[in-house]
Amino acid sequence: MQEKGLIIVLSGPAGSGKSTVRKLVDSAQHFDFSVSATTRELRPGEVDGVDYVKYSVEYFKKLIAEGNLLEYTEYCGNYYGTPKLPVFESIEKGNDIILEIEVEGAKQIKKNYPDAVLIMLLPPDFKTQESRLRGRGTETEDKIIKRLTRTAYELDDVQIYDYVIYNYDNGTQASAEDFLAIVRAEKCARRRLGNIKDNYYHNK
Amino acid sequence: MQEKGLIIVLSGPAGSGKSTVRKLVDSAQHFDFSVSATTRELRPGEVDGVDYVKYSVEYFKKLIAEGNLLEYTEYCGNYYGTPKLPVFESIEKGNDIILEIEVEGAKQIKKNYPDAVLIMLLPPDFKTQESRLRGRGTETEDKIIKRLTRTAYELDDVQIYDYVIYNYDNGTQASAEDFLAIVRAEKCARRRLGNIKDNYYHNK
Repeated sequence: MQEKGLIIVLSGPAGSGKSTVRKLVDSAQHFDFSVSATTRELRPGEVDGVDYVKYSVEYFKKLIAEGNLLEYTEYCGNYYGTPKLPVFESIEKGNDIILEIEVEGAKQIKKNYPDAVLIMLLPPDFKTQESRLRGRGTETEDKIIKRLTRTAYELDDVQIYDYVIYNYDNGTQASAEDFLAIVRAEKCARRRLGNIKDNYYHNK
Repeated sequence: MQEKGLIIVLSGPAGSGKSTVRKLVDSAQHFDFSVSATTRELRPGEVDGVDYVKYSVEYFKKLIAEGNLLEYTEYCGNYYGTPKLPVFESIEKGNDIILEIEVEGAKQIKKNYPDAVLIMLLPPDFKTQESRLRGRGTETEDKIIKRLTRTAYELDDVQIYDYVIYNYDNGTQASAEDFLAIVRAEKCARRRLGNIKDNYYHNK
């Protein structure tokens, strides 16, 4: 019996080190990565099918109407979302797939697919987040404030997450190991393993 | 803030390879191990305080009456149980403590201390268990049948466990790694981490 892969939602505010953790995790073992769909025009440098999948508004609305999105949102007149099909193809093959999405999308996924594993990556605290964002030296004060405010807003819903990983300074490797441990542990979660006794005596 | 350690219940029928997994796990990182109390006479080779702690029947009954046992049972006129005090001392120090107990005891612990992590180690299936027990060549047919029957009985309650680790032939190292991953993941479990947002902004 091919075991289903896991749908893993990874969220993390600006300054959490999400992209570094993602790279470390991906180099340690194979994961599929979900590519979001959007109706907005791709920007220079963005590749269709890699950074986003570009859909027309009509097609996006059709997917919504048919319930073929795991989650979606509208922002500044554009739609963004996660098509179900490629995600379900991955897990049916036994692959674990990582969805990097924000809290609002994570909520929808938890509702539509309760078996998903929701992981929030966080800086150790607010001060560290602030100094990381300022330390980049690439963003306007206005943008920094916006990001910090957004984090405060998102943390109101952190209780929907199954796991929280704190990414300490110089602790990115440890965060990646936490992530991999969570994936390994979830595969031993009794609730995922069907009828244990029945399988035990019928060798499934 | 010193984080509390975990109470980890490890159960596994005869032939599950529990003692080998325990040794591997213990050599990988520090764990405390709970020593069961008993009222029965210690056997030659058993050391008081190491294999069991020997209590008088009166003292054992006092612990029961005062609610100072995490779990206990009576078997052939003798009491067996897990005193609360040393277990709570371990976790208050931040140590993780492993309790090797059977399913009936695990049930009581889940009830008395819902934060405990319950792990069941199993052979991959019944046939493997049977051939492992016969392969030892040290036990009577009668004893083998008793152990297999007991397993069938215990598996009726396997749904109380949080995790099931299958110990495949030549897979004991993998089982130990599963165990360590579970412990690591549980330390990231959001429900154990208090008020995430409050801690984030007040740097606790």
